[in-house]
Amino acid sequence: MAPVKNGRVIFNEIPSGYPDPNKTVIYDESEIIDPDTVPLNGGFIVKTLVISIDPYMRGRMRDPSVKSYSPPFPLGEPIANHAVGVVIRSENPSVKPDLTGLRILENKEGLPWSAYVGIAGMPGQTAYYAWKEYAAAKKGETVFVTAGAGPVGSAVIQIAKSEGLKVIASAGSEEKVAFLRSIGVDVAFNYKTTKTAEVLAKEGPIEIYWDNVGGESLEAALEYANKNARFLECGMISVYNTEPYPIKNLMNVVSKEIKLYGFLVFSLHEKYEEEFYREWPKRVASGEIKYTEDAKQGLKETGQAIYEVQKGLNKGKSVIVVSSE
Amino acid sequence: MAPVKNGRVIFNEIPSGYPDPNKTVIYDESEIIDPDTVPLNGGFIVKTLVISIDPYMRGRMRDPSVKSYSPPFPLGEPIANHAVGVVIRSENPSVKPDLTGLRILENKEGLPWSAYVGIAGMPGQTAYYAWKEYAAAKKGETVFVTAGAGPVGSAVIQIAKSEGLKVIASAGSEEKVAFLRSIGVDVAFNYKTTKTAEVLAKEGPIEIYWDNVGGESLEAALEYANKNARFLECGMISVYNTEPYPIKNLMNVVSKEIKLYGFLVFSLHEKYEEEFYREWPKRVASGEIKYTEDAKQGLKETGQAIYEVQKGLNKGKSVIVVSSE
Repeated sequence: MAPVKNGRVIFNEIPSGYPDPNKTVIYDESEIIDPDTVPLNGGFIVKTLVISIDPYMRGRMRDPSVKSYSPPFPLGEPIANHAVGVVIRSENPSVKPDLTGLRILENKEGLPWSAYVGIAGMPGQTAYYAWKEYAAAKKGETVFVTAGAGPVGSAVIQIAKSEGLKVIASAGSEEKVAFLRSIGVDVAFNYKTTKTAEVLAKEGPIEIYWDNVGGESLEAALEYANKNARFLECGMISVYNTEPYPIKNLMNVVSKEIKLYGFLVFSLHEKYEEEFYREWPKRVASGEIKYTEDAKQGLKETGQAIYEVQKGLNKGKSVIVVSSE
Repeated sequence: MAPVKNGRVIFNEIPSGYPDPNKTVIYDESEIIDPDTVPLNGGFIVKTLVISIDPYMRGRMRDPSVKSYSPPFPLGEPIANHAVGVVIRSENPSVKPDLTGLRILENKEGLPWSAYVGIAGMPGQTAYYAWKEYAAAKKGETVFVTAGAGPVGSAVIQIAKSEGLKVIASAGSEEKVAFLRSIGVDVAFNYKTTKTAEVLAKEGPIEIYWDNVGGESLEAALEYANKNARFLECGMISVYNTEPYPIKNLMNVVSKEIKLYGFLVFSLHEKYEEEFYREWPKRVASGEIKYTEDAKQGLKETGQAIYEVQKGLNKGKSVIVVSSE
């Protein structure tokens, strides 16, 4: 193999609101390596095929003095996220993944590799794990899912439908609302043109709320929750880039005995990971579980993809295709 | 027995902010009954000894069109709450309590009857039940208790201390803060003169938050919660009479994987009631569990007592002594 560019996406500037497609991260291809000769020091070298772009990454683009659950991206260094790659050379005969978070994908189901950073990767796990752990869903109950057209939301919706629930789901464009209908959502609406509170007043009360957005949607969910509702607090994209919406109706938590479960997917890995890989990719491969993808070609598109994900402009799970097998 | 006044406290006016001591409820003693001859229709007649005045009663003083967990007090009718009384005549030989919420008190421990509407009644149950159900407390952890000098808060504090936790607690006067210290609170403060956020920044992070007040305290608890903190959402007196404080930092629920458990004491009765009466009054009678009482003499004091409880002016569990045995 001849020397190749070892492209990297550098964290260049802490954004104050939405990330800037051209400034927050910058693509750098100044580093050239020869995969055949670069020292491996007992490890292995991976050629990246596809990289995931996820909403939570915004939280890592922060001043390092601010503590949070995920480590901040160091300024001037490459950013990192979930990816799928192939080992092209190794000094470790078993290619045993000795780094936290690595997994050898067998892919007996023959899914596209990109599925393993989306529906069959972290977002799919998020939906699968937390639903099992916290939803306590019963057939005939009603669930409200925000960001329903995203990779987490659409997985939650399809799990809920497979268990016989009524699903109310919101998204931010007519195209996404059409996708929601195509995956079986009973009440799909565009939250930019229809008030969430009005929909829930009519179609609620809800027994389960899957929260990806926080803010005004959370307020409406509290208002139209049924007694003993379960709120799965997965994310709050409405507060990642803009001033948080002030919530004033938390007394509903007491009076309706609502339970709010904040969670992070990696805390549930140990309990559910093997079961997930055993069951879930099969359901995706069979076509039972549908998904959409918004693939950009080339690492230099990362800044734009990050921006679109924060703005909700992506049309499916956002991935960067870096190379082919 | 000669005819007696059958005093009643009538719900007279829906308050818009704090209840008015003279207008919200009014005392009426126009009804005269002869306990010896009044028809019992197969039931029994009870002479009330002591009545509880509780914060949650504010929620019942509402427009009946507003739904909530507790039924609204009907305007022009007597209000009702937890009380202790003696059966003075009965046409029911077993005095079997066939009305929901009645219980025959054996009082083998010889507690004052008023204790059974306070530390050994609903407020004590609230603390005892919910701590068992939701706190998942471990020795050495830190709990923050708001309205710590109230009957619920002070029971929570003493349970937490008996299990080896560090206790931070707030109250609204220096006298109450002194009481907090007397029951073993490690860090007691007056939230009117010291900012909760500052105390928690210094003495936190907290693993458990017992919320009796909501609002700014809840915001501070979210900010200074540790990973996997449990929030026991018992009440929010800060929103009962005034405009709710807007909460903007709920993203902490996700990032710290906080669990918020909204609950009402009566939902936990079935699981814990017998255990409570078996164990708890003994601990109170032995002096291990301390409590304070703010007793007013006579039913006509009800309006004033209701007002003081909403304002936090009471100096101990508020009770109305109606008569003696």
